[in-house]
Amino acid sequence: MKSVEMFQELFQDHLREISFKQEPKNLYEPINYILEIGGKRIRPVLSLMAASLFDTDPKEALSCALAVEFFHNFSLIHDDIMDAADLRRGKDTVHKKWDLNTGILSGDALLIKAYEQLEMYEPDTYKALMSLFNKTAIQVCEGQQWDVDFESKEEVNKSQYIQMIAYKTAVLLGASLQMGAIVAKASKEDGERIYQFGMNLGIAFQLQDDYLDAFGDPDSFGKRVGGDIVNNKKTILFIEAMSLANEADKKALLNWYSSTQDSIDKIESVCALFEQTGATQSTQLEIKEYTQKAFAALEAISQPERNKKPLKDLALALMHRSN
Amino acid sequence: MKSVEMFQELFQDHLREISFKQEPKNLYEPINYILEIGGKRIRPVLSLMAASLFDTDPKEALSCALAVEFFHNFSLIHDDIMDAADLRRGKDTVHKKWDLNTGILSGDALLIKAYEQLEMYEPDTYKALMSLFNKTAIQVCEGQQWDVDFESKEEVNKSQYIQMIAYKTAVLLGASLQMGAIVAKASKEDGERIYQFGMNLGIAFQLQDDYLDAFGDPDSFGKRVGGDIVNNKKTILFIEAMSLANEADKKALLNWYSSTQDSIDKIESVCALFEQTGATQSTQLEIKEYTQKAFAALEAISQPERNKKPLKDLALALMHRSN
Repeated sequence: MKSVEMFQELFQDHLREISFKQEPKNLYEPINYILEIGGKRIRPVLSLMAASLFDTDPKEALSCALAVEFFHNFSLIHDDIMDAADLRRGKDTVHKKWDLNTGILSGDALLIKAYEQLEMYEPDTYKALMSLFNKTAIQVCEGQQWDVDFESKEEVNKSQYIQMIAYKTAVLLGASLQMGAIVAKASKEDGERIYQFGMNLGIAFQLQDDYLDAFGDPDSFGKRVGGDIVNNKKTILFIEAMSLANEADKKALLNWYSSTQDSIDKIESVCALFEQTGATQSTQLEIKEYTQKAFAALEAISQPERNKKPLKDLALALMHRSN
Repeated sequence: MKSVEMFQELFQDHLREISFKQEPKNLYEPINYILEIGGKRIRPVLSLMAASLFDTDPKEALSCALAVEFFHNFSLIHDDIMDAADLRRGKDTVHKKWDLNTGILSGDALLIKAYEQLEMYEPDTYKALMSLFNKTAIQVCEGQQWDVDFESKEEVNKSQYIQMIAYKTAVLLGASLQMGAIVAKASKEDGERIYQFGMNLGIAFQLQDDYLDAFGDPDSFGKRVGGDIVNNKKTILFIEAMSLANEADKKALLNWYSSTQDSIDKIESVCALFEQTGATQSTQLEIKEYTQKAFAALEAISQPERNKKPLKDLALALMHRSN
């Protein structure tokens, strides 16, 4: 029986081998730096697991795994510039440690290196991989743009919000899995099912992230509870509350969200509004629905249960953060 | 007989058709904007001409042509940010007209759109195109990084400088041509020859740009004559002069290059040093050698003279700017 950890180790070992040694150093050192900062390596592990699900040696999907991890890290470098973020996982971001120009250019190079990884596949597989990769990459850019646009937009409805998080983060999870399935020469239908598993799980995870930001356990959430409320962020809870609230609650919520104060009072009052408008319950329901959709898609794949076990374990670990 | 203008029109007509109409507008409007600013469209025209050289309808290379033009414009958007340039061809740069984040993200999206263009080719051709495109794209990033590095580097020698301009600009000219040849299913040898034609022509053109900046005709050069000298830019003339000069001239040159003054006196004195050290003559010789190498590579291709005519005409037009 293969475990989540086994896939993680397989990827980490491979990643260690490909550290960029070439010149110019100022281009490649920031790339090595961001790749070494780490993270859970969820996307590459998904590619390996998907290959394994379809009875293919996960090693054959290692180049896919690198491609999706490179792409993810390219987007982190550029997003950190756009968000003016100084820290990522407790370390300086690339543009902070070096400068803006280094961040832009090493991000660009890392995106191209992601594409380059796929060249090891034979032409038909290569083209199928690239087509999915291109479609996904452009959706990630569109999702990022929607996210920026929504900050200054008066009204964002639930379906717009869910499309934004789907594009910004969930499609890459789906694509990471489907790319592993393409390498394993799985059927088109199974490829789409594994994509839907990742896509819906990604949406569920992001919605849960919004939920936990307000209602999570401060000891296990990893980020500061209430951070989104303090920053007046239009999360699914806010969007649901605005759509469900009566006039008085809507007014109260907008009032809190027009203030920049950082107080327990604000966090508690807004959380109470989320509860009494029904936004909390409605969000929990959405999370459940997307999670179920994800598992139903995995269920529909005609492979034995033991092949699906690592994907299920990973999905459950992701969704069972403290709440 | 096909003319340079005919190829330009073919590309312009195609470009007009593919304007990006989709949402989010804030992502795609900057892309349409930079593509509409125009320019000489040399790279896409080279792709079309190369296909035609090998007896293939240039229309078959239109997607290649778009890919290289998209790539070129992606690099312009990001380079303009890195150079803090406010104007491009007399119009506001993307990051100036919108903002930094828009420049980064729409540049990223345009790079992905460049890749996407190539998807219309069948798998074997596609993979050959992509492999060349990836190699070239990463070289362009490396060239840009060398250019940045050289600004703060004490000594840059001639071969380092020529590699930098080759990577930063000439390889894309070579690749634009070779991609057209790949679409036309030209032999590997002819593909490499047409690449060498573009690559060497690109180097000759860049060296000539350095030369004309100091010695060009102010009425026809298009940029301010002496601009590189005022900005203490390490051009081929400066590098050659530093390598050829006696101690006194070297000291005089370094002295001028440590001053930020913007005066006719500085420009004339530095030009005189370029002349008396032999840098001018040596640079003219380099330009001639790279131009000859380019034409020799074109000559070696086993296609009739009339097929080569548009490429020769374009090359001569590029190299016969006023000097």
